[in-house]
Amino acid sequence: MSFDAFAPAHRIATDIREGAISAKEVVGGFLQRIHKLNPALNAFTDVTAERALAQASAIDARRAAGKTLGPLAGVPFAAKNLFDITGLPTRAGSKINRARLPSERDAVLIERLTQADAILLGGLNMGEYAYDFTGENAHDGPCRNPHDLARMAGGSSSGSGAATAAGLAPISLGSDTNGSIRVPSSFCGVFGLKPTYGRLPRTRSFPFCDSLDHLGPFARDVTDLAMAYDLMQGHDAHDPACAVRTIEPTLPTLKDGVSGLRIAIAGGYFATDAMPEAQSAVTAVARALGAMRVIDVAGAGIARAAAFLITNGESSAFHLQRLQQRADDFDPETRDRFLAGALQPTAWYLQAQRARRWFHDEMMRLFETVDLIIAPATPCTAPELGQKAMVLQGNTVPLRPHIGLFTQPISCVGLPVAAVPVFGGLLPIGVQLIAAPWREDICLRAAYAVARAQVASAQPPRLDHD
Amino acid sequence: MSFDAFAPAHRIATDIREGAISAKEVVGGFLQRIHKLNPALNAFTDVTAERALAQASAIDARRAAGKTLGPLAGVPFAAKNLFDITGLPTRAGSKINRARLPSERDAVLIERLTQADAILLGGLNMGEYAYDFTGENAHDGPCRNPHDLARMAGGSSSGSGAATAAGLAPISLGSDTNGSIRVPSSFCGVFGLKPTYGRLPRTRSFPFCDSLDHLGPFARDVTDLAMAYDLMQGHDAHDPACAVRTIEPTLPTLKDGVSGLRIAIAGGYFATDAMPEAQSAVTAVARALGAMRVIDVAGAGIARAAAFLITNGESSAFHLQRLQQRADDFDPETRDRFLAGALQPTAWYLQAQRARRWFHDEMMRLFETVDLIIAPATPCTAPELGQKAMVLQGNTVPLRPHIGLFTQPISCVGLPVAAVPVFGGLLPIGVQLIAAPWREDICLRAAYAVARAQVASAQPPRLDHD
Repeated sequence: MSFDAFAPAHRIATDIREGAISAKEVVGGFLQRIHKLNPALNAFTDVTAERALAQASAIDARRAAGKTLGPLAGVPFAAKNLFDITGLPTRAGSKINRARLPSERDAVLIERLTQADAILLGGLNMGEYAYDFTGENAHDGPCRNPHDLARMAGGSSSGSGAATAAGLAPISLGSDTNGSIRVPSSFCGVFGLKPTYGRLPRTRSFPFCDSLDHLGPFARDVTDLAMAYDLMQGHDAHDPACAVRTIEPTLPTLKDGVSGLRIAIAGGYFATDAMPEAQSAVTAVARALGAMRVIDVAGAGIARAAAFLITNGESSAFHLQRLQQRADDFDPETRDRFLAGALQPTAWYLQAQRARRWFHDEMMRLFETVDLIIAPATPCTAPELGQKAMVLQGNTVPLRPHIGLFTQPISCVGLPVAAVPVFGGLLPIGVQLIAAPWREDICLRAAYAVARAQVASAQPPRLDHD
Repeated sequence: MSFDAFAPAHRIATDIREGAISAKEVVGGFLQRIHKLNPALNAFTDVTAERALAQASAIDARRAAGKTLGPLAGVPFAAKNLFDITGLPTRAGSKINRARLPSERDAVLIERLTQADAILLGGLNMGEYAYDFTGENAHDGPCRNPHDLARMAGGSSSGSGAATAAGLAPISLGSDTNGSIRVPSSFCGVFGLKPTYGRLPRTRSFPFCDSLDHLGPFARDVTDLAMAYDLMQGHDAHDPACAVRTIEPTLPTLKDGVSGLRIAIAGGYFATDAMPEAQSAVTAVARALGAMRVIDVAGAGIARAAAFLITNGESSAFHLQRLQQRADDFDPETRDRFLAGALQPTAWYLQAQRARRWFHDEMMRLFETVDLIIAPATPCTAPELGQKAMVLQGNTVPLRPHIGLFTQPISCVGLPVAAVPVFGGLLPIGVQLIAAPWREDICLRAAYAVARAQVASAQPPRLDHD
């Protein structure tokens, strides 16, 4: 069997377990592909080739010795460079962090995937300190969209979206504070899961905004997404936000379909500023899920405003010393945002937290009558690199802050979301499948149904045919 | 039996139940005393005479009809005027709030005491919006210390300390955010209990700083303090901070003594800036409790700084609209503090919350080796009204913010404290008995032991002999 960069992760694991291909061949194939394509894409900032090859050899040896291999045996993955990777400084997209000491231990989520015999290929490009929706980075250069190298991959988990879309790693890890998993999923055309706030431990990852930071996986295949998520679940005492809950695997119900689920389309706010591509993607997904009902998610605009203030306040408090001592070493774009946050009055922050609690209660009331809400992930498909404005409903608005129009209100109250990619024209666009807290299983079941209906899918980028 | 303004509450209740005196005689006696002494003391801002007399008649009638009376049958009490009292606007020490609509329902804690057949006599003077340690109030005039009318009663629950010390009500209710129960307890020479944060519901009381506000009782007798506290315990869903816990009565173990308890004296920070009166009060209490060990409560200064910033930030956020629209109607002293808070950066607030979590963990570690900590309640006895500075360790420091030197670090992490009054010279001074969260029983047992040893006691003020 020959190497297939677009094979699903679970098939790769099966092939390796069955001896149809070796882990070393798989890893070698991906490393070669990274070597060839990454200079144009700029998705990887660090490639851990030596470690990956050693681990592949060890897996092949364990197989040869008749040992049982883990569920992700030999499956390569990569992680946004805010995850600690043993031996590398955790740069979190910054110049400043490059001077950090090399990490002594992998982030918990990397450890858990490694425990399942997945193989880390390296660290991925991202917006500086995750304060970003574009994937542009002043220090490392922009991560480019595999479907159009002149376009944004989306931020801040730009490398995660691009690497997985481009077939450089079937699974990747990212973080989402205001949309940083869902935006690159949308722009790059892959599946992404932002779990419930507090579900996956953030231990040994570099924070952005504690009360809003989530970690989660990207994949081109829903089964892969669910597998990676299931394997990463579980409490870790070193993340104070991480809930003590039993592991609730989603794989067993993944293919159960959506009959019986009360599914609604988010109207109002979520229908107003979406471009036609976003609206038709929502319509296609709703049709595939048999959803007719439109509900108004009242207060989403307030929740978004709250998310801006909470992000700005918490992240600037976290970076205060760096801002005071190393302002010139920040990306000028993020520096301005952090400086504004450093001046933000406490009262704004506290009022934003109040608004957030109010919107949380509103959403909880909504989930008494609905199990799943469909909403666009981004108002538009991937903009061009360097683009600073866009037109929404006839109004020219600054691009960057408006990319998170539809993701910010949802992460603000920590709801689980699967982002599913819909290819209309040449570029993909994502749709959010949103459930009540701790119901990732519903998000993933619906994502699987939409994928099975061939409405959502990750398409190999044209770049691949070059 | 004739009326005795200094009889303990539990004896009043027994006498009324046994028919030795009627509730109406008791209430009448206290109303007369308020009429006579309050013009000089200025402890009451509202006297609910009609309601009190009606309730007394009803209790006497129920007794006459052979009905069972509650544990506080006919016992008068009064509440800081930030507690809602049916028919009165909840002024919270302010001019602005006088325009509020009359409350339609009593605060939960008033309801619970009323349920036990205690009788509300009225609302008590306090520092504006509780942002105070002195008991001076620009709108209502200062509440005066019953032991020396030229001196402060202490704030912000000034009226609660003064009314109970002066025999105007055997039990009173106050609030404590940074020391507002413990400071007037200390200056006026009564017992006060600041329960664990989240223990007593604050429903229908006017807030000051949500994450630091506690409510609690004052009394001249430890049994009365424990009875009132026990009767007020219990969850209320309308205070989100109120813990869902079963009621843990303290009366059954009140007289168990302190043998077996690991008791320590707070050294370092708590020994440094206390005046000789405070130090000898601590020594006397420690001797009565058999405590020899001195422990360092490391980080108390950091916790105090955090308490300042959290108070300033949260209270100013809460009052923002009033500050914008009615700045001139604030007490000039509190206005300055609120305005400073309105300009405080979010980063300061968040760093203070981090410091608070750190100090909380430090204290939890300390409580692994100790059950009770003895510390001064205030660095000094009651200062003179109008006094603006004091000398601590040879340094002249602003008076007001330093009054809370020893109370702020403790409330900042929500620990339960009983303040016990020690009379050395002419003026009393309080000592804090501090336990781990939810261990009010230990604070009260120790307070009872110190009272039984006649080291702590509430002395009738000289004013009474006039």
